[in-house]
Amino acid sequence: MANKLLGLSLSLCFVLLFSGCFAFSYRQQPEQNECQFERLNALEPDNSIKSEAGSIETWNPNNEQLRCAGVALSRCTIQRNGLRRPFYTNAPQEIYIQQGCRETFEEPQESEQGQGPRPQDRHQKVEHFREGDIIAVPTGIPIWMYNDEETPVVAVTLIDTSNLDNQLDQIPRRFYLSGNQEQEFLQYQQQSQGQGQQGGKEQGNEGGNILSGFKDEFLEDAFNVNKDIVRNLKGKNDDREGGIVEVKGGLGVIKPPIIRPRQGREEEEEEEEEQQGQHRRPPHQEEEEEEEEEWTHRERRSTRRPRRHHGGGRNGLEETICTIRLRHNIGQSTSPDIYNPQAGKVKTLTSLDLPILRWLGLGAEHGSLYRNAMFVPHYNLNANSILYILNGSAWFQVVDCSGNAVFNGELNEGQVLTIPQNYVVAAKSQSNNFRYVAFKTNDKATVATLAGANSEIKAMPLEVVAHSFNLEREQAWQLKNNNPFKFLVPPRESEVRAVA
Amino acid sequence: MANKLLGLSLSLCFVLLFSGCFAFSYRQQPEQNECQFERLNALEPDNSIKSEAGSIETWNPNNEQLRCAGVALSRCTIQRNGLRRPFYTNAPQEIYIQQGCRETFEEPQESEQGQGPRPQDRHQKVEHFREGDIIAVPTGIPIWMYNDEETPVVAVTLIDTSNLDNQLDQIPRRFYLSGNQEQEFLQYQQQSQGQGQQGGKEQGNEGGNILSGFKDEFLEDAFNVNKDIVRNLKGKNDDREGGIVEVKGGLGVIKPPIIRPRQGREEEEEEEEEQQGQHRRPPHQEEEEEEEEEWTHRERRSTRRPRRHHGGGRNGLEETICTIRLRHNIGQSTSPDIYNPQAGKVKTLTSLDLPILRWLGLGAEHGSLYRNAMFVPHYNLNANSILYILNGSAWFQVVDCSGNAVFNGELNEGQVLTIPQNYVVAAKSQSNNFRYVAFKTNDKATVATLAGANSEIKAMPLEVVAHSFNLEREQAWQLKNNNPFKFLVPPRESEVRAVA
Amino acid sequence: MANKLLGLSLSLCFVLLFSGCFAFSYRQQPEQNECQFERLNALEPDNSIKSEAGSIETWNPNNEQLRCAGVALSRCTIQRNGLRRPFYTNAPQEIYIQQGCRETFEEPQESEQGQGPRPQDRHQKVEHFREGDIIAVPTGIPIWMYNDEETPVVAVTLIDTSNLDNQLDQIPRRFYLSGNQEQEFLQYQQQSQGQGQQGGKEQGNEGGNILSGFKDEFLEDAFNVNKDIVRNLKGKNDDREGGIVEVKGGLGVIKPPIIRPRQGREEEEEEEEEQQGQHRRPPHQEEEEEEEEEWTHRERRSTRRPRRHHGGGRNGLEETICTIRLRHNIGQSTSPDIYNPQAGKVKTLTSLDLPILRWLGLGAEHGSLYRNAMFVPHYNLNANSILYILNGSAWFQVVDCSGNAVFNGELNEGQVLTIPQNYVVAAKSQSNNFRYVAFKTNDKATVATLAGANSEIKAMPLEVVAHSFNLEREQAWQLKNNNPFKFLVPPRESEVRAVA
Repeated sequence: MANKLLGLSLSLCFVLLFSGCFAFSYRQQPEQNECQFERLNALEPDNSIKSEAGSIETWNPNNEQLRCAGVALSRCTIQRNGLRRPFYTNAPQEIYIQQGCRETFEEPQESEQGQGPRPQDRHQKVEHFREGDIIAVPTGIPIWMYNDEETPVVAVTLIDTSNLDNQLDQIPRRFYLSGNQEQEFLQYQQQSQGQGQQGGKEQGNEGGNILSGFKDEFLEDAFNVNKDIVRNLKGKNDDREGGIVEVKGGLGVIKPPIIRPRQGREEEEEEEEEQQGQHRRPPHQEEEEEEEEEWTHRERRSTRRPRRHHGGGRNGLEETICTIRLRHNIGQSTSPDIYNPQAGKVKTLTSLDLPILRWLGLGAEHGSLYRNAMFVPHYNLNANSILYILNGSAWFQVVDCSGNAVFNGELNEGQVLTIPQNYVVAAKSQSNNFRYVAFKTNDKATVATLAGANSEIKAMPLEVVAHSFNLEREQAWQLKNNNPFKFLVPPRESEVRAVA
Repeated sequence: MANKLLGLSLSLCFVLLFSGCFAFSYRQQPEQNECQFERLNALEPDNSIKSEAGSIETWNPNNEQLRCAGVALSRCTIQRNGLRRPFYTNAPQEIYIQQGCRETFEEPQESEQGQGPRPQDRHQKVEHFREGDIIAVPTGIPIWMYNDEETPVVAVTLIDTSNLDNQLDQIPRRFYLSGNQEQEFLQYQQQSQGQGQQGGKEQGNEGGNILSGFKDEFLEDAFNVNKDIVRNLKGKNDDREGGIVEVKGGLGVIKPPIIRPRQGREEEEEEEEEQQGQHRRPPHQEEEEEEEEEWTHRERRSTRRPRRHHGGGRNGLEETICTIRLRHNIGQSTSPDIYNPQAGKVKTLTSLDLPILRWLGLGAEHGSLYRNAMFVPHYNLNANSILYILNGSAWFQVVDCSGNAVFNGELNEGQVLTIPQNYVVAAKSQSNNFRYVAFKTNDKATVATLAGANSEIKAMPLEVVAHSFNLEREQAWQLKNNNPFKFLVPPRESEVRAVA
Repeated sequence: MANKLLGLSLSLCFVLLFSGCFAFSYRQQPEQNECQFERLNALEPDNSIKSEAGSIETWNPNNEQLRCAGVALSRCTIQRNGLRRPFYTNAPQEIYIQQGCRETFEEPQESEQGQGPRPQDRHQKVEHFREGDIIAVPTGIPIWMYNDEETPVVAVTLIDTSNLDNQLDQIPRRFYLSGNQEQEFLQYQQQSQGQGQQGGKEQGNEGGNILSGFKDEFLEDAFNVNKDIVRNLKGKNDDREGGIVEVKGGLGVIKPPIIRPRQGREEEEEEEEEQQGQHRRPPHQEEEEEEEEEWTHRERRSTRRPRRHHGGGRNGLEETICTIRLRHNIGQSTSPDIYNPQAGKVKTLTSLDLPILRWLGLGAEHGSLYRNAMFVPHYNLNANSILYILNGSAWFQVVDCSGNAVFNGELNEGQVLTIPQNYVVAAKSQSNNFRYVAFKTNDKATVATLAGANSEIKAMPLEVVAHSFNLEREQAWQLKNNNPFKFLVPPRESEVRAVA
């Protein structure tokens, strides 16, 4: 009988990967030697750009662990009545809402639509968001954000610059549609180019938006507006600082709505508006209606019936698109995927939960640990994991393929650490409510554990474990079976007492 | 009530991307810093290789904008009776037929087939092409071209070297099956290697085809032919210059056909031919039949009925393959996707129109503008766009994420400009019939406009526009609504009069 | 009539590529200039690490042809009773079993399973393997191997480091779960970093497994075991050399089984085992049952009926996963795809034969040639081909796009040669039983031939061949038709006699 044996440990990733289609990674690999770190460090933002109504902090994207992971990070704080000006980015983004009220009310709305040449129809999706939301933003899609509550909004954004949807090089680029502020990652680009080229680029340092560079006549013709408006388009009459501006008195659009269905009249007007060739229509005529129309839409949407497009001539597919979800809450209040009342909980987000993530190739995870509880040693099978600490502190250890601890230290609120794919990580909480969010560079990120009821070692035959680790059978049995938990290990009883 | 708002502008790209499957980009990103241009320049070919019956011009693939876009470009002119020798390339290609007659007649044909071991069956597809055609050529597929009309054929070819179907590095490589000419991109490779290595490569400079390097005995055995024929195989008895040779008297294969269905006899012969072991069959015996067979095939195909394979033993799938389309006309005579009788027209080509483009990850666009008409400021959401000017001239402006105009100038016939992904571009025609073709590095390339009825700004709520641009509500209304056009803006009335 | 003609040679790759979905390549391209070789060399392993019960040899992954192909290679020899310790790798792997007994008996088995939080269920698949097997190992999946036969097992492994499933840089990384040996590719990494950094890395040279770097308390808590076991986990009580250890007396798990169905009792116990919170259960209690359970499983599987999971609550999808095939035999004893009794045979492996290869993006080929038989000149349309010679010797020629022979020499048993995508290769056997395995970097690798019944030249119209090669029609006819074979050419009669 043939006794050449082969053991392979298969995981549920197979379920995920084989469901429907195979899942592939479509990200640029780091450049040669970019992942050969001897030591990882907890990272904090190294720059903050002050704005009229908030600030934008950035982590240096040239840091080796972020370059290895192929991502860039920023954190944006929006004060009350702050409006983050619209911008788009050259790579897919995940935004995690770290802070905001716990309001659960939400109602998506659409404002205006045009019926144009394929593939250029535009839909503006306006949504409420709340703490714990992950917001998925595809490459090149403009986004703006607004906060009119007392509590500042704090949003952490991961830009996946190595995603192949970004066909440019890996520099994070933000394209602001308005204002004259410098885009927040430009400085690092200039740093990395050194002194030589910096001189020639000085004109760029002044800041500006993507319309600033055009000739006035181009913009006058393209928008059919006068020189005064063009000056504003180019950001020239604007002494408000930075990318987040204050809306004095609040955005009118979100004042409490007067809801009355008025579909008949609205349709007529939109039809009219869509006819070509109507130059310079009197500007005030429709203004009030427009605003009401928005609320009418919103009201209709909130009833969650499939809505009919005005004009009626659109198909069912588009209905679906208009309702595609871009947000998913993974915060504390959601039901976790892993839960241990003595240890903590973990909630994962994959493209099975939020289908647009399949396109972005990104996932996420939110977790919490009680004091002295721990995560067993584990690794990410098919993803890098970029940890951002939301609250408290925990002791982390990260080990490379040579058995070296490339990280061995505390991670505190606001710090970032990259866990490279396949590197082994374990952690023990030092706070009562240690919490983190992890951005994962795969839409079906899969974790393999090395200890516990579900681990790779548990899955191996007893004798293979015994001989691999040079253990007695009895010891190997203990190694495989002593920890009955899957992922979260409660504190030892002595530790629980110490805390109590 | 929660008033944290989020605006995202969604486009019909969603329709495209979600139809069937998600669309991913599968192209290599440029190397670090390869897209940090301060200035783009209009590019012209910098080398021309003369051939017996035409010439091949090339753009320097080491130019930074072509490296950023990850493509190489060439233009081939084929005189009357010119035959471009068969070659294949290490990356997918799109060929645009800039010049040729306007003939609309076309009939695909297949010449010969073998029934071989999986996956090695070969089918030769011989097609007519005409001005305005985009021809899609997958990696490694041999192609030849022939012109027997008075008007020279001018074909512009984009090689997508950064496509992941090319598993080698990004150097464009052409593999000629015959002749002894140097492949047209080799010189740039030698330039970039500098003096040091050039010495050692001198043997390569002589030129040669992919059979030149084999030992005579290998070729004698492989083809079972004599030394004389082997000398020709290796390109040694050939003093005809370059990759395009003259066929004195014209190619016999395309003389007017005598069409008679002769299926019975033909089948027998092919069956016979496919039997193995028939060494050195008398050479002349089948010659006439072969030619007629081709015409017979063609005749049958032109009736557009699904054809039966001889032998009958093949399945329906293969039928489909034999008829897969590799060409699609986007020239002036086709019905445009966007049309404004005062401004111009635009025709786009995606994988929805020509399915093989999905495999290649490439698209295209053909457009024209009348004098003083313009394109509104817009950007390519998910693609680089490589513009080639077919006729006339226009003033282009291209703006980067810092608001700098990286291009501000005229583009004239025969010039090339790369519009990097997400960079904003606008143009105004300076000719009565400005025309261009744009090669796009995505099979579902999507454009977002910043001005006009369908624009990102039009899609934003009025108050967001007002506060973002520091405008009065009235001005913001104008900005959103004054231009009723989607993409093409007619000249001002004053300009129209000036021309008239 | 329009006479501009275009010839494109289509191959069955279309069948493959269009079946179901398009097939894309998802591998990192080599860095600039990494494929510009003037000369390829036959490669042999340049390092060997001795183990207690075998050895692991490696090819230098920094060699230019392996860097161009984006792969790393190793060869592992496992003596009788040798157990290759469990490890996972940062990229997909294909393992070819070069040597082992010809036993055809096989019975897959599963040992233990846990029902855990999504997506973390673990299944251990234990399989027998035999000579000629290709084993597919996805990124990050642990594997171990064992041999208890007299004949040493020789396994050649290709690691596809440029596969985008590997999100780190292209360094091959092996993560050992146990022991204290250095991972076999680490040395090259240190070499390429040079002297400067080497000092700082010395701690890494000591070797260690992925648990070595953790603090003792972490491991004590995570596994709930004592300090002695933790020392072993970290590889500290282990003076056995290298990654392959000897199992004195053989692995108990594979001793002849006592097969008796005992499903009832087993289920109860597994249920019990899966409950959380059972700290420190007496270790010996279940030991015997565990072993028997494994055999029970195996017995049930060998009847090849779809097996029911204990507990019954799992769905049909998972059944499929548990039975997904990771092995496929392409060795001498299998029925070939191409066979010529005078010349040899070829067997190809694609994702149509072994579906998991679609995920890995890899394929393979096994071939043999008799003395003086040859392969016609051909190229790989969509893949690099990494040849490993299993037996005998043959003369190979490889020609680049400039017509230069970049390889012209003998390949002998144990040597490796990369045939870059699109480069033309031909070979003539110098042994009676020349045999090779080729690893292909595409799961639907396609070959195009230049000579023979199925070739690109055969597919072109006679006149195009004549004018391209400057041949008379008669000569062109010979070129197209003289060789009636598809791929394998028997020796000339004179050569056959010479041998006889």
